[in-house]
This record gives sequence, C-alpha cells and structure tokens, in this order.
Amino acid sequence: MTTFQSVIYNDDTICALATPQGSGAISMIRLSGKDSLKVALKHFSFAKKILTAENIESHHLYFGNFIDRDKLIDEILLSYFKAPNSYTAEDVVEISCHGSIYIQQLVIEIFLDEGVRMAEAGEFTMRAFYNGRMDLSQAEGVADLIASQSKTAHQLALGQMRGGFSDKIKELRTELLNFTSLIELELDFGEEDVEFVDRGQFLKLIDNLKFELEKLIESFKLGNVLKSGIPVAIIGKPNAGKSTLLNALLNEERAIVSEIPGTTRDTIEDTIVIEGYTFRFIDTAGLRDSTDTIESIGIERTYEKIKQASIILYLCDVSEVNRENIDEIFEEFQTYINDVDKDFIFVANKIDELDSIPPHLKDMLEQDAVFISAKRKENIHLLASTLVSKVKDKNISNEVIVSNSRHYDALKRSLDSLIEVENGFQNDIPTDLISIDIRQCLYHLGTITGEITNDEVLGNIFGKFCIGK
Amino acid sequence: MTTFQSVIYNDDTICALATPQGSGAISMIRLSGKDSLKVALKHFSFAKKILTAENIESHHLYFGNFIDRDKLIDEILLSYFKAPNSYTAEDVVEISCHGSIYIQQLVIEIFLDEGVRMAEAGEFTMRAFYNGRMDLSQAEGVADLIASQSKTAHQLALGQMRGGFSDKIKELRTELLNFTSLIELELDFGEEDVEFVDRGQFLKLIDNLKFELEKLIESFKLGNVLKSGIPVAIIGKPNAGKSTLLNALLNEERAIVSEIPGTTRDTIEDTIVIEGYTFRFIDTAGLRDSTDTIESIGIERTYEKIKQASIILYLCDVSEVNRENIDEIFEEFQTYINDVDKDFIFVANKIDELDSIPPHLKDMLEQDAVFISAKRKENIHLLASTLVSKVKDKNISNEVIVSNSRHYDALKRSLDSLIEVENGFQNDIPTDLISIDIRQCLYHLGTITGEITNDEVLGNIFGKFCIGK
Repeated sequence: MTTFQSVIYNDDTICALATPQGSGAISMIRLSGKDSLKVALKHFSFAKKILTAENIESHHLYFGNFIDRDKLIDEILLSYFKAPNSYTAEDVVEISCHGSIYIQQLVIEIFLDEGVRMAEAGEFTMRAFYNGRMDLSQAEGVADLIASQSKTAHQLALGQMRGGFSDKIKELRTELLNFTSLIELELDFGEEDVEFVDRGQFLKLIDNLKFELEKLIESFKLGNVLKSGIPVAIIGKPNAGKSTLLNALLNEERAIVSEIPGTTRDTIEDTIVIEGYTFRFIDTAGLRDSTDTIESIGIERTYEKIKQASIILYLCDVSEVNRENIDEIFEEFQTYINDVDKDFIFVANKIDELDSIPPHLKDMLEQDAVFISAKRKENIHLLASTLVSKVKDKNISNEVIVSNSRHYDALKRSLDSLIEVENGFQNDIPTDLISIDIRQCLYHLGTITGEITNDEVLGNIFGKFCIGK
Repeated sequence: MTTFQSVIYNDDTICALATPQGSGAISMIRLSGKDSLKVALKHFSFAKKILTAENIESHHLYFGNFIDRDKLIDEILLSYFKAPNSYTAEDVVEISCHGSIYIQQLVIEIFLDEGVRMAEAGEFTMRAFYNGRMDLSQAEGVADLIASQSKTAHQLALGQMRGGFSDKIKELRTELLNFTSLIELELDFGEEDVEFVDRGQFLKLIDNLKFELEKLIESFKLGNVLKSGIPVAIIGKPNAGKSTLLNALLNEERAIVSEIPGTTRDTIEDTIVIEGYTFRFIDTAGLRDSTDTIESIGIERTYEKIKQASIILYLCDVSEVNRENIDEIFEEFQTYINDVDKDFIFVANKIDELDSIPPHLKDMLEQDAVFISAKRKENIHLLASTLVSKVKDKNISNEVIVSNSRHYDALKRSLDSLIEVENGFQNDIPTDLISIDIRQCLYHLGTITGEITNDEVLGNIFGKFCIGK
C-alpha cells in the first residue's frame, strides 16, 4: 500500500498490474485513459488482420503477439473496453500475458516508455468515482470486497459496493435537502417574516431522520464485528486447554478448506473463520496468572478484554470437576454472565481423561455445556456450531449495516448536527443560525457518498487500495 | 509445486486459479473441459440477455453477476473460448472476479460442488499437449517462460515455446526416419540380400546428423548459463570489498527497476540481473581464509569454484597498491587467466581513499582495469557494462540453443546411438543389429518433442508447472 499522491484527476493514460504480485499462469496489465488503445495497438500484432481503432471491437478478446521494436515479448490476449463502457468509464485495455514477473515488468516498462504513467494505488477506482461510475461509499466497498476474508465481511462489502448503503444515505439527505431549500427561501425573504416551512412537519422529519441515523449508527457495532471478527474471550484456569482448543478449532477449519489452494490464514494470531464468520480470539492469559492477586493490574486488563468480547467461552478441565467444587465453578461462571450484551458458552474440556461422563456433569450438559476433548479433537465441530449459532440469528441480510468507521464517524456528526437543529427549533433560535447546523448535517451526510469531499479524504480512501484497482 | 498425479488424460472438466496466489485487483479462474460452459452459465447472470450455449460468442467478454442459489457472489467478467480455439483445445471459460482470496475460494468451491475437479499442476498445458496444440519441448518452454527472470532466459524460453527447437529436432528425426524405413524394408526382404539404402549416402547423413547433434549439445553450455545465470567469481584478498561491491551492484539494479512494482529479487543470494543478463556470483570466501596454508582443502574448493566461473573479477584494494607490489599483484592475477574459456576483469576498488589515481595505476587502466569505489558507489555502472560486454558478443539470436537438461540428456543419448550406428556400418555389423541402434536414436530424439513419451516423464515435466497453467 502506498499513499495516494495525485488526487487531482487528470486524463493522462495510466497502467498497472491488476492481478496479484508474483508469478503464476497468467498476469493481467491494465491501461486506462485516452491513449490506451493507441499505445496497446502499437505493440500488438493480431494474427488474422491488422487491428485499428476503427475495426477493433469492444469487449472482445484478441490473441496475438506483444512486440517491441519487432521483437516478440509474449503471446497475449488483448481486450478493449470502449469508453464509457469500462470500469473507469475511460478507454480501457487489458493485456493477459504469461505470469512471469519478467514479462509483467517488460510490458509495463514498454508502456511507460510510451509516456503512460504508473497508476497509483486505487487510481482506476478513483477515476470510476470521478466519472460517476460509483460514489465514494461504493468505491470503499470495492476495497472492502477485495480485503474481505469471511462470508459476512464479503456480504457487507458487496452490499456496499452495489450501493445499498449509498441509496439509504442519499434518500435521507434528499429529504433533508428538500426542507432545507424551503428554509433557505425563508431566509431570502428574511425581512418579510414569511414561513414556507411547517415547523411541526419539519420537527417530525428531524425525528424520523434521527431514528434512521441512530439505527445506522447502532448497526456499526454489528457491522464492525462482522467485518473485523467477532471477539471471543476464552477464560478459564491455567491448563484448562485454551491453546489446544484454538489449535483444534484451527484444524477443523483447515480441513474444510484444504482442497482450495491459496487458503492461507491471516497472520493475526487466533483469527478463525467458521462457516463464513470470523471469530477473533482475545488473549486472556493475564487472567490465568493473576487470579490470586486481586489487586494486580493483570485482572484490570483482562476484564477490559472481556469487556470487548461478544462471546465468552468458559473453559474448564472436566477431570477436575467433582460434586464438591462444581457449585464453586458455576458461581465463578455466573460472575461473568451478568453482561446482557454477551453470549456465554460453558466448555467442559478433557473428556478423554474420563471413562464416561459422570452424572453430575450430565446435569451441566442440560445447562448448555459443550463437552470436548481439545487434545483428541473430539466434538470440536459441536463447539464450532455453537459459536456460529450465537451469531447466526443476528440477521444481516435485509438491513443496511454500517461497517466503515469513516461512515460511522460521519453519521455521528450528522446526528449531532441534527440534535442541534432540533434544539434550535425548540428554543426558537433564529432560522439563520439553525440553517448552519442543517448545512453541517447535510455536509456530513454528503461526505459519505462523496457528494462533498476533499483531497485529504480521497487520498486516505484510495491510498488504501491496492495498485491496479 | 505439487507432483503430477494423473498423467492419463481424461476429459472431465477441471478448474484452477490462473492468476498468482494472493489478493489483488483482479483474479482469474479458468475452467477447461466439456462441461465448462454449462457449469459457468449456470452461475452467471448477464445483464442484457439470457446467455446460452447457443447464443454466447467465443472470445467475447460478458459483464454480469456470478451467483450461487440466487445469492450474489461477485460482479465478474466471463469469457468463453470455444473448442478447439482455446489454450487446451477444449471448451475453456475464464472468469475474472475481484481479487479477494475469499471470492476466489468461493467461486472454485462452487465449481467443485458442480462436479468440476481441481486441476493439477500443469494440467491445462498437458491437455494442450495431448490435443496437439504444442509438443513436449514447447510445453516445457511455457514453464520456462513463466519462470524466466532475465532477458536471455526469457528469449530462450520464448523461442522454445514457439517451436524453434522442436522444428530442428523434428527435421533431424525425419531425415533419419526416411532412411530407417528403407533399412527396415531391407530387413523385410532379408533373405533376398537386396540393398535399398546407399551405404555411402547413409554414412554421409549420419555424419551430418552427428554434426548437428554435437552443435546442439555444445550449445547447452551457453544455454544453461544464460538460463540459470552467468557464473562470476570475485576473487581477491580479504577486505578488498567483495560484499560492498555486490551490494553496490545490487543497488544499481534496484535503481533501474524501482519504478515497477513486484520487482522482488530472487531469494538466491548474489544473483543480479544486469541489462537482462543474470549473473550468478560465486562465493569464494574460502580463498581468503586459506591463502597462506597451501595444503588446505579451502584452496581446493575455491579452485573448484573458480573452475565453474565464466567470468573472474579480480578485486584489489587500490590504496594498497604501490610501485613495489604492483608486479606481484599482476603476477597473482596472471595465474588465474590461463584458462582460455574464461573472461577476466581487473577491478581496482577503494578509489575514494586516494586523492587522485597515481600514474602507476593509470598504467593498469590501459590493461582494462575498472576503477571503482564500491563504498561510494562510484563507477559501478562502468563495471556493470564491462560485465555485460563480456557476454554480449555471445550472440544467441539466430541459433537454436539447448537450455533444458532433459533435452541435453536425450541429445547425448541420441549421439551415442548414432556413433554406434556409424561404428556398426564401418565394421559390417548385420543390418538388423544396426537397426536397433537407429531405433534407439529415433527414440531419444522422439522423447524431446514428446512423440515418444511415458507417464513418468510427463509427470516430471508437468509437475513442475504452477497450478492453473
């Protein structure tokens, strides 16, 4: 990732490798801009006829030789996307060559020699945005889609890229805008003391907008969790088997995806995708070391972490549970489950160390405990399903969910402005002062879709893209 | 890289990720086989009309939705290559999706669920070979092309992929085959003692074939060096600045390619590409440590390494050279340059430690010395050009050059058989015995292009490919 330098749109021709870095069967290099076709055709020789800007068909694949000063560079497929029917809405040419790093470089070098410029990170998508192919929140959806590593993150990003969220925001903004123009009209007739706006109706609108904004803001909690992983804290005494459990869960997942190449796990330790949901396991090692010293900072820290968790796995060594200490264990468990916002799973580990599950443990079973052997990988799939069941009922299919912290921030600012507007009306503040807050609210809503924007924001957004997109 | 399992060609439908592993702007998944189109269309929804096997155009790009049971997976570009006008000569479908690892996996999983099989390494190219799109040596050229990391390796591989080498081999084999059929005819008429073959003409042919084979075998020395790098030994006293020089050369190269992303150096230490030529620097640390103990194994080993080198850089610390020891240094240098097969470059390092180059060193300059400061990166480009000039005159453009050790081995075996044939004729060995050697020669030539082959050889060759090619 590089930072985005030239946010000002200019119509020069850019190129970049669009496929992932490295060597493979095929690589694709993409050109966008007015000279794309001219530059590409200059270095292309199609077997069947001489291709020109006049006879080349859009959206067609031509097999031929990529040449440089009569020297063959590679056998390639060339395709042309005539403006505006392309990703950027400009003339786009795509060249599929053999996936050799050397050839990729050579082709790009040849284009650079022709005066084409290396595209910056996200520059193709930025052009799509400038040319009205998508709004800003949709562009952000594209980046999220590429980065998505789980079913839910993928769904959220896809929805955003397709404009579901943008539509909602634009709808809210338009409603507010209609009223605002009436208010501005009042200000123009300021001396005459006319009221174009029905105050009651306006307050009702604000109330409705507030409700919608609050719902969106509230959805961020879920959206963020779905995007970056559902935080799960595993707590329990030392040697309850936390690491073994994590490895067993990881194995479970590995087994599912082992057929597919490229299934490399994220480098963040302890992030596991189960049935499309990312679970982010929070390290609570601190708890183990400091259970005896009540005053220690360790406890503080662990409680802080437990606070962040959506799900708490209470792991206990089943071989150490007996009729005498079982109540004590449950008592400890109960101390955690006061928080209504969290889900709890009682996990009885090390069933391999028992011949059979004793009756007093059977009782626990009825209290929704999961009996496993992390060591022998027994019942791990049961625990996995239990984890999934805790999040599955949180239906995300039909709701607009905010998962982007920039949008969350803008929505909160919009709400703040709206509350100011409401207060203003209720306290009979002069309309011209209220109007400032309305414009603030409109401004913040506008930043989400990019109707209002600035270079810094654009730089931040597109700088996070990969090169070639 | 995996080993190739099922060398037996069957016509089921296969799929694989064809672009490099990992995340990027775009990824491409490729299907080949009779069900490719059916399976792909089942999950594709084109915006403008309902696509069917009847109305879909070959070599056209369709933008639409990739769906699975009414659920949107991604917005994609689909293209269809109707058999036999495809890479494998089968029906091929290519799907370009967003370069998210999650989406790649999902698309492949959906195809696997439809009964499509994961392609093994090189399986697409193997099908191209089985279907007569290319011969074996051309297929090997494809793998070499993808692996090529320098101009010369790229050129060699491209030539081989385009069939230049195959043509030569086929030509030689056909000549031999024509005569052979006459010989076999003689054997059929064995009792009648007729001679269809002019012995003198046949010996002339064998002589000609021998000459051609020897030329090809000889070319392997250059071919191998061009493919895997020109071996360069840097020798000189400790502290002459070998490592600093290597780093400086490396920097020089980095500067040239820094504009292009993905320019990651090979992990093999000390391999540097300059102007398209790969130089492989041979570690001669052993020499430094054991110059005083003549008997040591170190010397042995270093001389062994120097023997492998095509170019020897003699590096000396110029600040330590004076009128007194200069002859001694040159004497040492001379001991290395007896080998006519090698090129030598005298490099005077550390010119930064001198105010000006003293006259007695100027004399060295006339003896083709390069004056540099590795530390200050002065004149490194001069040394780089000198290195390149030593190999540039080895013209590779019009000659057929063998760069594959399997071909080299087969050529040597062919030559051995041919010599047996020649000896046979000269010693009046019965024709039926000579015929065995001729067949041996034909066999070995046939293995190069794959006219004759076996599962093990195919397994070895295609197992070295990447998945998706």
